Amino acid sequence: MKTNLSKFAHANWFPNLPVIKGIQLSSVDAGISKQNKLDLTLIEASPNSIISGLFTKSKTCSYAVDWGRKNLKIPQNLKQPIAIVVNSGNANVFTGLNGEATVQKTISSVTHHLQTAVENVFVASTGVIGEYLPFEKITSQMEVLVKNLKPNSFLQAANAIMTTDTFPKGIHRQIKLGETKVKINGIAKGSGMIAPNMATMLVFIFTDISIEKNVLQEIVMRCNNQSFNCITVDSDTSTSDSLFLIATGKAKMSKIKSLEDPRAIKFQKYLTKAMLKLAQLVVKDGEGITKFVEIICKGAKNHKTAVKVAKSIANSPLVKTAIAGEDANWGRIVMAIGKSGAKIDKEKLSIVFGKYIVATNGTVAENYDELTVSKYMKNDSLSITVDLGLGDARASIYTCDLTHDYISINADYRS
Amino acid sequence: MKTNLSKFAHANWFPNLPVIKGIQLSSVDAGISKQNKLDLTLIEASPNSIISGLFTKSKTCSYAVDWGRKNLKIPQNLKQPIAIVVNSGNANVFTGLNGEATVQKTISSVTHHLQTAVENVFVASTGVIGEYLPFEKITSQMEVLVKNLKPNSFLQAANAIMTTDTFPKGIHRQIKLGETKVKINGIAKGSGMIAPNMATMLVFIFTDISIEKNVLQEIVMRCNNQSFNCITVDSDTSTSDSLFLIATGKAKMSKIKSLEDPRAIKFQKYLTKAMLKLAQLVVKDGEGITKFVEIICKGAKNHKTAVKVAKSIANSPLVKTAIAGEDANWGRIVMAIGKSGAKIDKEKLSIVFGKYIVATNGTVAENYDELTVSKYMKNDSLSITVDLGLGDARASIYTCDLTHDYISINADYRS
Repeated sequence: MKTNLSKFAHANWFPNLPVIKGIQLSSVDAGISKQNKLDLTLIEASPNSIISGLFTKSKTCSYAVDWGRKNLKIPQNLKQPIAIVVNSGNANVFTGLNGEATVQKTISSVTHHLQTAVENVFVASTGVIGEYLPFEKITSQMEVLVKNLKPNSFLQAANAIMTTDTFPKGIHRQIKLGETKVKINGIAKGSGMIAPNMATMLVFIFTDISIEKNVLQEIVMRCNNQSFNCITVDSDTSTSDSLFLIATGKAKMSKIKSLEDPRAIKFQKYLTKAMLKLAQLVVKDGEGITKFVEIICKGAKNHKTAVKVAKSIANSPLVKTAIAGEDANWGRIVMAIGKSGAKIDKEKLSIVFGKYIVATNGTVAENYDELTVSKYMKNDSLSITVDLGLGDARASIYTCDLTHDYISINADYRS
Repeated sequence: MKTNLSKFAHANWFPNLPVIKGIQLSSVDAGISKQNKLDLTLIEASPNSIISGLFTKSKTCSYAVDWGRKNLKIPQNLKQPIAIVVNSGNANVFTGLNGEATVQKTISSVTHHLQTAVENVFVASTGVIGEYLPFEKITSQMEVLVKNLKPNSFLQAANAIMTTDTFPKGIHRQIKLGETKVKINGIAKGSGMIAPNMATMLVFIFTDISIEKNVLQEIVMRCNNQSFNCITVDSDTSTSDSLFLIATGKAKMSKIKSLEDPRAIKFQKYLTKAMLKLAQLVVKDGEGITKFVEIICKGAKNHKTAVKVAKSIANSPLVKTAIAGEDANWGRIVMAIGKSGAKIDKEKLSIVFGKYIVATNGTVAENYDELTVSKYMKNDSLSITVDLGLGDARASIYTCDLTHDYISINADYRS
């Protein structure tokens, strides 16, 4: 398998992620990934940090996801640090008792070396499904991981969580809540098996705001619905999707205790934007990508229908291959709308590529000029808008094309 | 675009389709397809023939489908012949008033030249979506089509309905109903945009049995659920899927008037087998195919769940690319089961490639030998069985792999 750097990598290079008080990270090459790279990361958040999370809805999810979902429901011990152990190269899914043991041994090892409580430890794994992940590979590295924890190791961590990703993905935002400047840092990995369902890939977000756990969890869920739940690379939902957000409470501010607090509202707005950017970066590193595409469905009766239609288009192999071929084959958009199952009035439907109306009122647009639209299709970033003409709801789904490189990457991923 | 003959073509070459009394066909090159080939076919069935049909559930279906669905609901004129006009190269979908006019003008032309009633005429179109199909291309050929009608032109018709197909697809069966030998002939086209929903592609089946219309329609629906509704090439449902079955009543037998008639039961059984074979031929000519794969889900609580799980696997790009790479990547099967949304007990799940158990009780099988299974993956035809261990229901879905050729064919289909 040979993977070229995504063409979107340079314009989206890893930004400078400043220190967030209370957060430390370290990464090592533990020999888990078959590639010669950093593959094991420890994230530590200082006592009094709040953690919230979202996980894949897959029915064959990983043991790490099972553990995280259960663990998040009980109160963490605020007097002790929170820890997340992340490995790439092995998803530890469908590995039976052995897989569960690896999760348990990892947790024990963290509680021992970091002096923290079991309920404060979370695990995330990404990589090949069905292969045993020997716990020794992780536990033998714990001492050095703890020793090397540093507050400015975000880039190393972003690298260490990558699998078929071609560039590390990070984001930083600084916003003012009341009189206080607070920070948001985020890192994510993901490139294939990307069709998140409630959560996605591996995403770790850090902030120094002070906020109650239940308020934070609700905000994260709302933001996720506007960001990671709006992307798809290949319609395949991962077994391992996990998103964690840690708030260290180190910013000088009174604690946010309700969703109605203006600071909560502002934080949610900016967090959504930050998460959307991060989600788009995942698509921009989609396996084999040559085109980044926003599919907009507007004029829908409700949001659910708008999402359904936009996803049907975004997941269609025939639409995605046409885009790869720079072919303004809008007939396939018609097909994908039709198969979505959403109620349609053909006569009210219109389709727009970029700013060019290609079809309207149930047929090709009068001034449609295939040459102009074909030229538009040569852009790296494209938008396709479908107006159902039936209501006011709209949704955007972000996706990429389906190319020879996707086949090359995935026909031979394990070898 | 260059398309190689499917590797399954030679073993499935067009069989000898004998005359079925009452059926005549003719085909011409009407210049509709951009390729230099037969692209327009007229099928005629003698007076007293019964026609039944099934159509795509797409909400952006073609005018031909709209017409056929409506027309089938009213009684045909038994004193006059039934006719179907089929063109390839243009789907006449999303072509507005122009598209409707083409359907109407086609029908008028048939009623005039063939001396039959409007309600006896059906139309089917397949090809590019959204391009105008000038009615003159069809109507100007009607006289010669009628003049050239012959009872033994099945192969020409099977060729004339092809688009990205690489070989013509036909089937013949002879069965004994009571004391009477009856015949079934069928032809089909389809290669991409194949994920039938209630009907599929273009399929025309002919028989000489004598049967009532409502009984025939019910039998066709049942058979379809066990055949064309069990295949998928690329998860994209066509706007134009149509299946027609004509029974000429020319066999020497008393009319079948009920589903309980033992002859109806036997006919249904054999028709299901014939249609399944034809449906499998469509998959075996799937765009870019190198592997023909049966996905079996058994041990399900009910049939619906079995279909859901098997289709989730059959439609997964990651499963399909792994198969293309001859990679026994059963982890992706686990993923696809998980994303199906079906209720699963991980501990009861087992996965079998061919006769090789790869995973059982929620983990890799004890005797799993990757080398043996990798060798098995080199076969042209593969089976993957998933046992949910929760009940007695089972379903088979037939599919193919996702290859570079699929991308090549579809990134540049229209040019």
